[in-house]
Amino acid sequence: MVESWSFLDTVESNFRPLVVIELAKGTKEETIQWFTKRIVDKKANGGAQLLIKPLVMENGVENIYLVGASHLRLLLGAETVGLVKECSDNSMRTFTYSSRKTFKDFADDNHNFLTMAECQYIIKHELENLRAKNEKMIPGYPQAKLYPGKSIVRRLLTSGILVQIFPLHDREELKKLRHSWYGRVKVGYQPLDDIRCYFGETIALYFGFLEYFTFALIPMAVIGIPYYVFAWEDYDKYVMFATFNLLWSTVILEVWKRICAILTYRWGTLLMKRQFEEPRPGFHGVLGINPVTGREEPVYSSLKRQLRIYLVSLPFVCLCLYFSLYVMMIYFDLEQWALDYHEENESNFSSLMLYVPSIIYAVVIEIMNRIYRYAAEFLTSWENHRLESSYQNHLILKVLVFNFLNCFASLFYIAFVLFDMKLLRQSLATLLITSQILNQFAESLLPYWLQKRYNRRMKKRMCSQKTDRDLSIAEQVNMEKEMGTYLGTFDDYLELFLQFGYVSLFSCVYPLAAVFAVLNNITEIYSDALKMCRVYKRPFAEPTANIGVWQLAFETMSVISVVTNCILIGMSPQVDALFPDSKMDLVLTVALIEHLLLAIKFIMAFVIPDKPRDIQMKLAKLEFESLEALKQQVRAFQMQLHFLLIHH
Amino acid sequence: MVESWSFLDTVESNFRPLVVIELAKGTKEETIQWFTKRIVDKKANGGAQLLIKPLVMENGVENIYLVGASHLRLLLGAETVGLVKECSDNSMRTFTYSSRKTFKDFADDNHNFLTMAECQYIIKHELENLRAKNEKMIPGYPQAKLYPGKSIVRRLLTSGILVQIFPLHDREELKKLRHSWYGRVKVGYQPLDDIRCYFGETIALYFGFLEYFTFALIPMAVIGIPYYVFAWEDYDKYVMFATFNLLWSTVILEVWKRICAILTYRWGTLLMKRQFEEPRPGFHGVLGINPVTGREEPVYSSLKRQLRIYLVSLPFVCLCLYFSLYVMMIYFDLEQWALDYHEENESNFSSLMLYVPSIIYAVVIEIMNRIYRYAAEFLTSWENHRLESSYQNHLILKVLVFNFLNCFASLFYIAFVLFDMKLLRQSLATLLITSQILNQFAESLLPYWLQKRYNRRMKKRMCSQKTDRDLSIAEQVNMEKEMGTYLGTFDDYLELFLQFGYVSLFSCVYPLAAVFAVLNNITEIYSDALKMCRVYKRPFAEPTANIGVWQLAFETMSVISVVTNCILIGMSPQVDALFPDSKMDLVLTVALIEHLLLAIKFIMAFVIPDKPRDIQMKLAKLEFESLEALKQQVRAFQMQLHFLLIHH
Repeated sequence: MVESWSFLDTVESNFRPLVVIELAKGTKEETIQWFTKRIVDKKANGGAQLLIKPLVMENGVENIYLVGASHLRLLLGAETVGLVKECSDNSMRTFTYSSRKTFKDFADDNHNFLTMAECQYIIKHELENLRAKNEKMIPGYPQAKLYPGKSIVRRLLTSGILVQIFPLHDREELKKLRHSWYGRVKVGYQPLDDIRCYFGETIALYFGFLEYFTFALIPMAVIGIPYYVFAWEDYDKYVMFATFNLLWSTVILEVWKRICAILTYRWGTLLMKRQFEEPRPGFHGVLGINPVTGREEPVYSSLKRQLRIYLVSLPFVCLCLYFSLYVMMIYFDLEQWALDYHEENESNFSSLMLYVPSIIYAVVIEIMNRIYRYAAEFLTSWENHRLESSYQNHLILKVLVFNFLNCFASLFYIAFVLFDMKLLRQSLATLLITSQILNQFAESLLPYWLQKRYNRRMKKRMCSQKTDRDLSIAEQVNMEKEMGTYLGTFDDYLELFLQFGYVSLFSCVYPLAAVFAVLNNITEIYSDALKMCRVYKRPFAEPTANIGVWQLAFETMSVISVVTNCILIGMSPQVDALFPDSKMDLVLTVALIEHLLLAIKFIMAFVIPDKPRDIQMKLAKLEFESLEALKQQVRAFQMQLHFLLIHH
Repeated sequence: MVESWSFLDTVESNFRPLVVIELAKGTKEETIQWFTKRIVDKKANGGAQLLIKPLVMENGVENIYLVGASHLRLLLGAETVGLVKECSDNSMRTFTYSSRKTFKDFADDNHNFLTMAECQYIIKHELENLRAKNEKMIPGYPQAKLYPGKSIVRRLLTSGILVQIFPLHDREELKKLRHSWYGRVKVGYQPLDDIRCYFGETIALYFGFLEYFTFALIPMAVIGIPYYVFAWEDYDKYVMFATFNLLWSTVILEVWKRICAILTYRWGTLLMKRQFEEPRPGFHGVLGINPVTGREEPVYSSLKRQLRIYLVSLPFVCLCLYFSLYVMMIYFDLEQWALDYHEENESNFSSLMLYVPSIIYAVVIEIMNRIYRYAAEFLTSWENHRLESSYQNHLILKVLVFNFLNCFASLFYIAFVLFDMKLLRQSLATLLITSQILNQFAESLLPYWLQKRYNRRMKKRMCSQKTDRDLSIAEQVNMEKEMGTYLGTFDDYLELFLQFGYVSLFSCVYPLAAVFAVLNNITEIYSDALKMCRVYKRPFAEPTANIGVWQLAFETMSVISVVTNCILIGMSPQVDALFPDSKMDLVLTVALIEHLLLAIKFIMAFVIPDKPRDIQMKLAKLEFESLEALKQQVRAFQMQLHFLLIHH
């Protein structure tokens, strides 16, 4: 079917499938021929110069294709995407084909120089950059319009001809990774470098952050335990705990930046140049001229987008916030009802009933969060942002504001309107623990169980009793294509963010929160690892240099928690007793301490450098080298010129 | 004396002196010969390839040299320093000699393509980058050690052989500039572009900021006048004024960033790449290997520097702060004494006496500020920072902390310890007005008058009655070399910073401060302009893209003023009267409003983009182009490679 193989194919005899393309069933033959031809075509002719093979299923339907590439093609691709690798002298440098010999572990016959995840990332990049030449539409589908420079794959995806593109798992590697990651019960660090090699930097950085965050919470948890065990209620002990907590949270967030720099320097993404951002797949508009690139592409008026944001999205978010507050008030009615019931007929059952409203509320919060999530995605997508980054920022802002209010409004209400510290402690505990249990269940165990059941049925249907390892490539593809798609680290970070809120916002009334957070995070590491390895399709690796907007979100939370904790301490009866004469002195003292703590936080954030000294030195060295190289170039050119002038 | 002229000299017949080099009297002949040879030597031989001519004085002493360069040399130098100029299509691009034809106003015979300030900057850069080859010392001065790569000019300066290097004024241009700047009484903007062409970006940006800041203060001043005229003392009017003030100060600081981006984009410095920073001239240490560049140069242990900072500088600063507070307490004793005197024998004289302590204190503050300034410079220099930027940061931090406390401690004491609003208003007015008068006098008028007197004596000695225009080059150099050296914009920004403090910290008790600030700034523009044009040597142009650390300093001041104003309003008797029952409610309300204002400030700073949309687009376009060019390069190389592979 594929007519002309790339010349590189003759060089490479062993075709290694890396990426799977699934077309819609019943895709027209002419479309398939055109698409596969573009994929294998030479770069010079505007192709991607990759290898492609159809996968013939038992039912004879041919809608799945395997994509690979020759070793040389991948190396050239690594240069195009700007991969940074380690050199023989242990420095990190941008890979170029001409300087390939200077890189560590490079050999012409070493096909493991690029990790499989990197190869798949390169292929994805090349496929997405396969652009229309003068085609006006996709052959066979006149409604799927094209214009010069439009990414073919993105158009195929939006018009439904291309169902999905996903990278294949490497069953051998995955088994090794599973074993070292969560296969045995052990105390120690996660194999972050192996995770990075298999899943890419974004996911490895999430697991790095999760692990770091868990370790960072341990001191808080350890200090918090005696408060529970000995039921300490002294003023000075609480103040000490809260102060330690607030300064500690600043320190851990600053230190994370440094650790993040160390990790991403080692992985090469700290040095990777940002690629020019293309419009996101879902973006639509009338054809016009992009003022930046000068190319013809869809443009969408910024004014229209602003109108959609301020006249539709903003009111909708406000409405949702109002609804969330309304639900909160219902919860308080329920709470009151349970209390009345308990007082009327006191029994074991009725005291258990006291916890029921909180648990119901926690479940409702989780459900509302999830429904709102879909609404926010729909709205943000409808706002028609041109760039993925701008889409992400608007989505994250919407989701964060709602989730913050939805999760913490009741706690704020209890603390600062009802002034009921006992209820606050009880609500906080119920909310935290219920949401953790729900999350663990909804996120990993349920999909895992569904996946398990599906796999069993699948194998039965295939009438084969082989183990995982013996699966043919066709069977593997068939199984993986039905697996769920991992939608990115957003939900995982959000969960951590809310947990951080539970731990730090009211830390001085419930020191035990940190203990639960640590326990949850330890199981979270295992269940997330299970989810990545067993439940989902392998995701494409995404290079990243930091955790992005989440750093800002966590820092904002730690600023808010300074304010809440100072107020809580000021409200405690023990502190009250210290200022018997004048409540005013009490409030002034609390305000003064709060401002001092905030000032210390900002100064600490300013003083602690974001990158460790040795990373700074290495970066300075690279910058120096590139400036020197530029200077050499200019100098060489100028000398040539002077020489010419003399001999004229 | 100069033996071998550069070949470029034969091309250029008209030597235009740009920069003056003054050597110490009695410098050895062999040193002069070596130095001038290095200056005129070809680039290929490690020279600077500039033109140099000795200036013979009437007394026959030859210690002054004029430096110039051929047109071609300057164009090549513009490429080396990375100058950004406007192209024919109105976009800003980094100048390269090979693409020179695409630039606006470029013609081979147009010697005004580069401004004189740019030419002088290029010559300074080339002179400073004249580096030792294998000389172990400066010929004739065995104690002035050299090592390969050491900047010769910097060593000559530190060993006292080179007295100074300064650029020449252009009397024609200066006259035109003076006329359009302050020559006639007019209402309107300053000729910022002309100032930039003559004095460079750093100075032009200071005058731009001064002008912008003055305009930005006008609304505050206008709103403040009726408070004085009608003696308004209503609660709500003060709250309105303070709220407007606080939000306004956030807005003006954010908008300044945008205006700054517009200015520096037009001047090309927004796009200019940062050069690799060399050690500052005063830096010393034992010879070692720089880990970043791998070059041999003096290194100084970071630990030793830290010890000097924390064990000497920090205690010294604390001691100075203590001393400043001590002086403040003496001032309050004086104030009390004057009050007692006034009460005992009431008369016109005694009521005038009431102002005397404040005036004395204001003068003492100014004197202490200036003495401390020298101490801070000495200490920071003794800390032996390797980079100029790190030296500047430590100096600015030291000076800002001291000046802030020195100027505002008494006001804080009056406001928040004595609770005496009447005294606060009186002190604020006296301090502000006295310091403005002192500054204007010390900064411009005194040096101007001294300079005038010196010039008169000079001319008399020369026994010539020529006007400025007819001065020979020798006379011009002779006159300019005795003029004072402009030490940078530090003091000017500091003055504005303190003024901003007087205006915003206690704005709600003394709305008239803004009026005085506006009046002062209008005369300040004129006196600073006079200072630049008449009093000082022409300074070298310094490219800069923003006002640097001052932006942060002004923003910090505006955050502090939110806190102080909220407290002041909370303390006013009118507000007190609103909460007759509970002082606690009052304090809580004030604290709530303060937090709200701070939150609004941060959100506003976050929401207002730092660069206007069209500048963002232009920058994105340039980034896109450079990425495209890189991609083209990679692609061309890869195609070549593929081609080779096929034909093997």
